[in-house]
Amino acid sequence: MEALLRQSRSMCPFLKKTSPATLRSLSTTSAHNASPGGGSMSNLQVLARRCPIMGKALAVQSARTGNAALAGAYGGARAYHSKVPRANLHTTAPKEAQAVDVGTARHQAAPYIQVPKTAIPAREEHLVGPPPKPQPVQFNYDGFYQAELDKKHKDKSYRYFNNINRLAQEFPRAHMANKEEKVTVWCSNDYLGMGRNPQVLKSMHETLDMYGAGAGGTRNISGHNQHAVGLEATVAKLHAKEAALVFSSCYVANDATLATLGSKLPNCVILSDSMNHASMIQGIRHSGAKKLVFKHNDVADLEAKLASLPPEVPKIIAFESVYSMCGSIGPIEEICDLAERYGAITFLDEVHAVGMYGPHGAGVAEHLDYEAHVAGRPKGTVMDRIDIITGTLGKAYGCVGGYIAGSAKMVDTIRSLAPGFIFTTSLPPATMAGAKTAIEYQMAYQGDRRLQQLHTRAVKDALNAKDIPVIPNPSHIIPVLVGNAETAKKASDMLLEDWDIYVQAINYPTVPVGQERLRITPTPGHIREYRDHLVTALDGVWTQLGIKRTSEWAAEGGFIGVGVAGKEEAAPLWTDEQLGLNEVRQEMKAGQGAVGVLEAVLENERKEVASAVAAAA
Amino acid sequence: MEALLRQSRSMCPFLKKTSPATLRSLSTTSAHNASPGGGSMSNLQVLARRCPIMGKALAVQSARTGNAALAGAYGGARAYHSKVPRANLHTTAPKEAQAVDVGTARHQAAPYIQVPKTAIPAREEHLVGPPPKPQPVQFNYDGFYQAELDKKHKDKSYRYFNNINRLAQEFPRAHMANKEEKVTVWCSNDYLGMGRNPQVLKSMHETLDMYGAGAGGTRNISGHNQHAVGLEATVAKLHAKEAALVFSSCYVANDATLATLGSKLPNCVILSDSMNHASMIQGIRHSGAKKLVFKHNDVADLEAKLASLPPEVPKIIAFESVYSMCGSIGPIEEICDLAERYGAITFLDEVHAVGMYGPHGAGVAEHLDYEAHVAGRPKGTVMDRIDIITGTLGKAYGCVGGYIAGSAKMVDTIRSLAPGFIFTTSLPPATMAGAKTAIEYQMAYQGDRRLQQLHTRAVKDALNAKDIPVIPNPSHIIPVLVGNAETAKKASDMLLEDWDIYVQAINYPTVPVGQERLRITPTPGHIREYRDHLVTALDGVWTQLGIKRTSEWAAEGGFIGVGVAGKEEAAPLWTDEQLGLNEVRQEMKAGQGAVGVLEAVLENERKEVASAVAAAA
Repeated sequence: MEALLRQSRSMCPFLKKTSPATLRSLSTTSAHNASPGGGSMSNLQVLARRCPIMGKALAVQSARTGNAALAGAYGGARAYHSKVPRANLHTTAPKEAQAVDVGTARHQAAPYIQVPKTAIPAREEHLVGPPPKPQPVQFNYDGFYQAELDKKHKDKSYRYFNNINRLAQEFPRAHMANKEEKVTVWCSNDYLGMGRNPQVLKSMHETLDMYGAGAGGTRNISGHNQHAVGLEATVAKLHAKEAALVFSSCYVANDATLATLGSKLPNCVILSDSMNHASMIQGIRHSGAKKLVFKHNDVADLEAKLASLPPEVPKIIAFESVYSMCGSIGPIEEICDLAERYGAITFLDEVHAVGMYGPHGAGVAEHLDYEAHVAGRPKGTVMDRIDIITGTLGKAYGCVGGYIAGSAKMVDTIRSLAPGFIFTTSLPPATMAGAKTAIEYQMAYQGDRRLQQLHTRAVKDALNAKDIPVIPNPSHIIPVLVGNAETAKKASDMLLEDWDIYVQAINYPTVPVGQERLRITPTPGHIREYRDHLVTALDGVWTQLGIKRTSEWAAEGGFIGVGVAGKEEAAPLWTDEQLGLNEVRQEMKAGQGAVGVLEAVLENERKEVASAVAAAA
Repeated sequence: MEALLRQSRSMCPFLKKTSPATLRSLSTTSAHNASPGGGSMSNLQVLARRCPIMGKALAVQSARTGNAALAGAYGGARAYHSKVPRANLHTTAPKEAQAVDVGTARHQAAPYIQVPKTAIPAREEHLVGPPPKPQPVQFNYDGFYQAELDKKHKDKSYRYFNNINRLAQEFPRAHMANKEEKVTVWCSNDYLGMGRNPQVLKSMHETLDMYGAGAGGTRNISGHNQHAVGLEATVAKLHAKEAALVFSSCYVANDATLATLGSKLPNCVILSDSMNHASMIQGIRHSGAKKLVFKHNDVADLEAKLASLPPEVPKIIAFESVYSMCGSIGPIEEICDLAERYGAITFLDEVHAVGMYGPHGAGVAEHLDYEAHVAGRPKGTVMDRIDIITGTLGKAYGCVGGYIAGSAKMVDTIRSLAPGFIFTTSLPPATMAGAKTAIEYQMAYQGDRRLQQLHTRAVKDALNAKDIPVIPNPSHIIPVLVGNAETAKKASDMLLEDWDIYVQAINYPTVPVGQERLRITPTPGHIREYRDHLVTALDGVWTQLGIKRTSEWAAEGGFIGVGVAGKEEAAPLWTDEQLGLNEVRQEMKAGQGAVGVLEAVLENERKEVASAVAAAA
């Protein structure tokens, strides 16, 4: 690369004009992924690949490098892909429609080229009739698929799905492929158990009978109905926005909205948190807009990047409230301040927060102005300042689907332009009715999310007491660090087989290599018996597999927040006061520890739930 | 452009080396869309925009052109977008991450730049405290949204959704926003009425009660279950393939599969039918692979393009069986032949055909070997030769969701690599159970799709008899040509208001400008009374609005198949024999016309259905 650069310098007008500092920055800054699967290039390489001269030189060079490094027959087929998966999951769109260069193409595809059988006929065949016309060599698709799968097996990122059938009547229990084999699910995103909420199910049953199984068309062609109208009005009300739009999923909502805005806004720049979800990364990639990745939750880095852009250029700051794999929470208010100062709009993914935070379950943005929203005064709050909020109907709301909420004009623009919204069948009426009921239920009732938070605190406390390494965070996510893909899978398998506990191992590409974990998500249904069993099981598995404890991480200086000495832990977003712990603490006599208070509250909540269930029955 | 070309010729090594013929071809061939919304560039412009010298020159030039052509304040914000929507819906990915050029950016964004109010403080504010710091000009997002919406209004492509609530018990009737206001739906894609099939609904009710509303996670994290396993096995069996994979929708299935294969297969070239659905166009665009668009259903054009490519380069031929807006049917067998000859794989979208064709409802590919599939011998059939079949659960199967089917290795590769599959919540258990029931029902029962075909024939015959311009095709789609966006909407509104008939107008971008139409889709439930009413209504609306009749199109030499003299009409894919018309014809005495036979069969079918319903009740 360096040699090529020097060589080209004298003849290339771009290189000649550009300062060494800029070139250095381009060649080191943000690595881009070339494909959905992986691989990375520097910004300079991305630019160089667009040049008709350098592009070809690079293609030939990388094909050579790739082939030279070949270990097996297929390993280097896409030579510019790095072979080691990167921690940085961020991708953008360095690829584009390219003229086919016959020489280069042949070179890169070489490992998969096969000679069809008919081209080398057996002797017998030769004797019967005229010899078959020799066929040219062809690409070996099966070999390619096999090689891709082999790579996944080799780096332990191949996924084995567990057959988990969550039982509505025995939540949080599920049966495996065999109905007799039951387990406790500790990793579902049905955070509040709304998937088995009687009101949600009633609403779905009635709608099924009245309006049938499916919508029967796109929103424009016979798939628009009162359920879509009602659900979108409810979502808009939840977030105190003018309008909302429902999509097949929030993956589609994020992808379609960012792709549409990023491609339509003239010269748009998207500033993206480095931990953003794949759906946002894809949306940004698909937009073709310029992307600047800022360090996770780093407001200073974001500001530096905003300040580097011309003030009048349209900018989108895309980020999340709760980052689902580590449980960290975005600095929403500070980002709103920056957006206003630098003329950007904010795009906030509240997927893991809706239903879970705020007095009405509208998410973290609502939670930040808890009292104002309790009083019904959303104007001027953080949630009010966010331009675009996206959320899901498939996690805390227990159904499926996703949405955006914001100004009427923005929503109408996306409705009018986004292919991922326009050209697909609407969600079924029953799904939309169920989701609407779930949102309304959670707008009116605080009990589920408070109990969920209490259970989260109890599990975190119990694991910490056992020296089991919880990655600290202020949210409802309990990431337990393992640090190795194979061990994480083994721990998960062992929990399932020996303890009847289902917690999926989270490996690359969902988390970076080396940060593999078990991700535990308590629900209101995870009562003390389940918790005690889980803690005992994890303690046993940790010992059996010799997985590092918090104290061991601490001895090494700590890692991603685990065992980091002297670092103050972020306080939970739900305060003691909001959870009602203060009241109980006051009621109880001094001298009783925090755990005792928590247990007392849990016992109260449990009795309340039991009597509520009895009353409903 | 021409001047720039000549100017650059002497100094650009690419232009110097390239022949005038190639340059001409590049500057005229396949227009690409720059964004999901519209706009087009020649291949040469796409290449030129990648060049660090030409790219800037073009940006400045197009910004000038755009601004000069401005009619209103915002019309030219994206100057390289054509202002007139193009007939060619095909897009590819000419856009990519681009370095921000301050000068160009400022120029292009100019119409949206606004000075914030605080920058021009009122006199009173000046007097209280220190004067506020003047803020720089910022992008006007609201102005941008408004301008995009204004464009849609201006070219009549702005969409007004009709609130249609299809009633399961009164199929094909629906109520509007007001429950008392009832209409007959004539444009749903619930082609067979499976959305209200009692077996489908029973299966969904039971699954809802047992397993709850939602899946609660991605396929990898607690969202994989017996319903996913069962549904995928059923889909694989339906298409006689090794494996299948279910997605949120077939939009996502097409997008994710093509994007993944196109980006992963080294130097992949995708050959795409010019009428392909938006989901495939997006998938190809997102893949970044080289795309060659072949003329709709033109096997000679496809072969010429295949022959132009190196034999060992991986190639995907992406096409459909039934093209939903015109009802044409792809030459599947011929395309399989070409794929084998040129070493390509075939990607067939059967979205509008599954449930509708073939003895088991597996689609057109199955229908082509009707007898072999009746006999349970799929090996060597056209369907067997297709590499990747995609289908939907949201149209003839009455639910929601999409899938791919093919070899185990291919499916496992997509399962392992496609972000659109990996990072999204699974479909709800009840949806998957309902879809499985629907597929199985249609695998075992021919009655619905045969009756649907009979109704289609009857409607086409009746409209032709009234000189109403049906765009001829061999499928179940009845496109009625209007030819103007405003008139099409007016006709649709008039049908709804005056006749209680709902047929959505199909305008750009779903169909090319000038080809606007009403798209009618009969179902087994559209009995004679509904048909007679529809034909009378259309006849009245055609007269009232003065819309061209078939004979008028014929007088002008015909248009997209309507009124084209001497052209033999394609025979329906479902033959008289397959529909049982021959038997009835033999039973009846000679001298009775075809319509009489059709009516007799319909009467028989109707009695059968009535008695079946009575027996079930």
